Amino acid sequence: MNPADLGLPVDVPSTALFTDQYELTMLQAALRAGTADRRSVFEVFTRRLPDGRRYGVVAGTGRVLDAVENFRFDAGVLGFLRERNIVDEPTLQWLASYRFSGDIWGYPEGEVYFPGSPILRVEGSFAECVLLETVILSILNHDSAIAAAASRMSAAAAGRPLIEMGARRTHELAAVASARAAYVGGFTTTSDLAAGFRYGIPTVGTSAHAFTLLHDSERDAFRAQVDSLGRGTTLLVDTYDVAEAVRTAVEIAGPELGAVRIDSGDLLLVAHRVRQQLDELGATSTKIVVTSDLDEYAIASLAAAPVDAYGVGTQLVTGSGHPTCSMVYKLVARAQSADPKAPLVPVAKKSMGGKTSIGGRKWAARRADADGIAEAEVVGTGPVPTELADRQLLVELVKGGAVVAREPLDTARERHIAARAALPMSAIQLSRGEPVLPTEYA
Amino acid sequence: MNPADLGLPVDVPSTALFTDQYELTMLQAALRAGTADRRSVFEVFTRRLPDGRRYGVVAGTGRVLDAVENFRFDAGVLGFLRERNIVDEPTLQWLASYRFSGDIWGYPEGEVYFPGSPILRVEGSFAECVLLETVILSILNHDSAIAAAASRMSAAAAGRPLIEMGARRTHELAAVASARAAYVGGFTTTSDLAAGFRYGIPTVGTSAHAFTLLHDSERDAFRAQVDSLGRGTTLLVDTYDVAEAVRTAVEIAGPELGAVRIDSGDLLLVAHRVRQQLDELGATSTKIVVTSDLDEYAIASLAAAPVDAYGVGTQLVTGSGHPTCSMVYKLVARAQSADPKAPLVPVAKKSMGGKTSIGGRKWAARRADADGIAEAEVVGTGPVPTELADRQLLVELVKGGAVVAREPLDTARERHIAARAALPMSAIQLSRGEPVLPTEYA
Repeated sequence: MNPADLGLPVDVPSTALFTDQYELTMLQAALRAGTADRRSVFEVFTRRLPDGRRYGVVAGTGRVLDAVENFRFDAGVLGFLRERNIVDEPTLQWLASYRFSGDIWGYPEGEVYFPGSPILRVEGSFAECVLLETVILSILNHDSAIAAAASRMSAAAAGRPLIEMGARRTHELAAVASARAAYVGGFTTTSDLAAGFRYGIPTVGTSAHAFTLLHDSERDAFRAQVDSLGRGTTLLVDTYDVAEAVRTAVEIAGPELGAVRIDSGDLLLVAHRVRQQLDELGATSTKIVVTSDLDEYAIASLAAAPVDAYGVGTQLVTGSGHPTCSMVYKLVARAQSADPKAPLVPVAKKSMGGKTSIGGRKWAARRADADGIAEAEVVGTGPVPTELADRQLLVELVKGGAVVAREPLDTARERHIAARAALPMSAIQLSRGEPVLPTEYA
Repeated sequence: MNPADLGLPVDVPSTALFTDQYELTMLQAALRAGTADRRSVFEVFTRRLPDGRRYGVVAGTGRVLDAVENFRFDAGVLGFLRERNIVDEPTLQWLASYRFSGDIWGYPEGEVYFPGSPILRVEGSFAECVLLETVILSILNHDSAIAAAASRMSAAAAGRPLIEMGARRTHELAAVASARAAYVGGFTTTSDLAAGFRYGIPTVGTSAHAFTLLHDSERDAFRAQVDSLGRGTTLLVDTYDVAEAVRTAVEIAGPELGAVRIDSGDLLLVAHRVRQQLDELGATSTKIVVTSDLDEYAIASLAAAPVDAYGVGTQLVTGSGHPTCSMVYKLVARAQSADPKAPLVPVAKKSMGGKTSIGGRKWAARRADADGIAEAEVVGTGPVPTELADRQLLVELVKGGAVVAREPLDTARERHIAARAALPMSAIQLSRGEPVLPTEYA
């Protein structure tokens, strides 16, 4: 991870403790058994989408690359592992020189996915790959959950700007990652300064109810705000009486008033009334921002209302009912011996209680119809059929330990918009349903 | 925040960017209007508990104290704010010397809370208090949500150990805070090494299915694990056939085998079968650990099963259906002028759409019956009634900017167990219901 990678000018020497203890104890046992060097293929996939969802959104890939690059065991970390007696000395020595040297392929960030999609494929020795399980899953499960909610909201907003403002509803660093994932999923701006700092996402914000309450009157507060932030600012008009506040706002700022924000009440009704009042006062270009406990359904219900922008908090950072994905990181193939030329053998846990896996290193492609609309997610382990060769989804991300696929966040955002647009129309229906594409195993 | 505060040996110079932009623009406008120095009281409270929950759990207080102490605007942060033109030069100058110098009182960590409980009270100038809104809410909303789920699970587990293993299901640093909050709520151990490193929480973990699949046979895998980790290790027995795995496990490790872990299938049924088989094989002291998608209901349903420990992941780190709390940070009183002796005036937003607040600086006490069982959460703004004087809930956390209430995490954990035990019995019913204590306004 880069020093600045947590949304702050911080120095993070390692991501190696974002790890479940069993990864280290497995390493120890495999080193001793002589199996640690067997070439192995791990894949990240999900057995299902969250109930009723039509598609998933891959997000966090860029953060995964940073995490892998900075996965090192420095003296502080090794000292902790030694003191706690978590692993033995030979294992500590092995960890001291750890650098991931394998290959990673995956769906590029912003791409959509379906049950069984091999979202990420990590290949190298068992030892070097097994250690990455937790940090990779933490990032992808969190960020993809947020991006999926964001994508539904941005589809519902149908082009109106969306402001991410959920920092206060989630862990302070999850908030930074959430703002990033929301941007990939189609959001426009964020209130979170750390996300602006780290990822360059445009930040917005003007005032809260506390600012009005601080002053002796709403008029004093509005005047103070306009004096300092200019007429183009957004005034919050629901601290006392909305109609009176709108009147006062236009009186003070004039028709150049940038926007008013409504944060409570029946937004549909209030937005109509406020729009009419603003127009009657001549403030025809003053915008209306609404921000009260919105989710994709509330956004859709305001499609016909005179609303110019939506601010979304809680429901965005909690994935709108699905705060995590169910991605897993599974060994799907490994060599029969430590010989680097030994062929790979597909492996899989026996099915029990629905936890099925399919062994073998996989490719994936999205088959499209004659109009270019996707019709199936095709996943296979053999050779890629010729007709799907140029529809393959996995791209090379890390080659021999070196990251080869860094990209600006806007690229992921644009990719997501394009990938969603290539899905059947029903993808963006908010109603519950099956995945919009079937997954076929070739 | 201490350098090591994110679960790593990291250097975090500041928490000041964990802030919504509007806090800085309000500051700018108030500085210019001459209202920034008005003495102000902000309170953190929630209007309701998550639907059906009987009590809330305060968690994250210790992290809040670190965040407040390290809320500074260094050159990197100021440069970003300047470059982005987020606030003007006088505001940047003011921020450069920012140090919180006010007072904070609050419910101590681990304490339970109810709708309207004044969980935290921040007092100082408007300027210095308004900036802390987002970081305080991020921490308390996240950590308290996790602790509340943990508390229900630990009540359901009725003394059996609980292992936190949800790191892979949430943001990598939210995971560290989740392990901490779970510990406060009654969990015993965590799989997350970063949480062990930072907070000293005991860590556990032995092996995953990948370890079995890496080897040519389950027997080879078990032998490798026992050879390296000893007979006291926990063997995962559901990769292929459970009965065969248990037989192999005891054959290799003998009756000293520490435990077997079951991660799929009908846990109730499988646990009974495995216990019987272990006993028949003479492994009567070998324990059974279960770990498949557990929540408090699944834990309760296994109360009569021969299970020795539960591992909980997804449902813990997502708050078992409620991944955040609805705590808000509201201005409840402020001075009429910048004169430090000016009396405080209670303030509150006018009710619209159910967003009611009660103005004024509050005290809170928990009234108990003759047996010491809590019967009401009493919240008031006037003098504290004599009979409640020694039942007050708020304690001094920060005095004149200095943290005065640091404590070990175990103290919070013990406090929680005691506070929960003093609630009416129905508090730990898992069924949905009203808050177990009414909130009375004195």
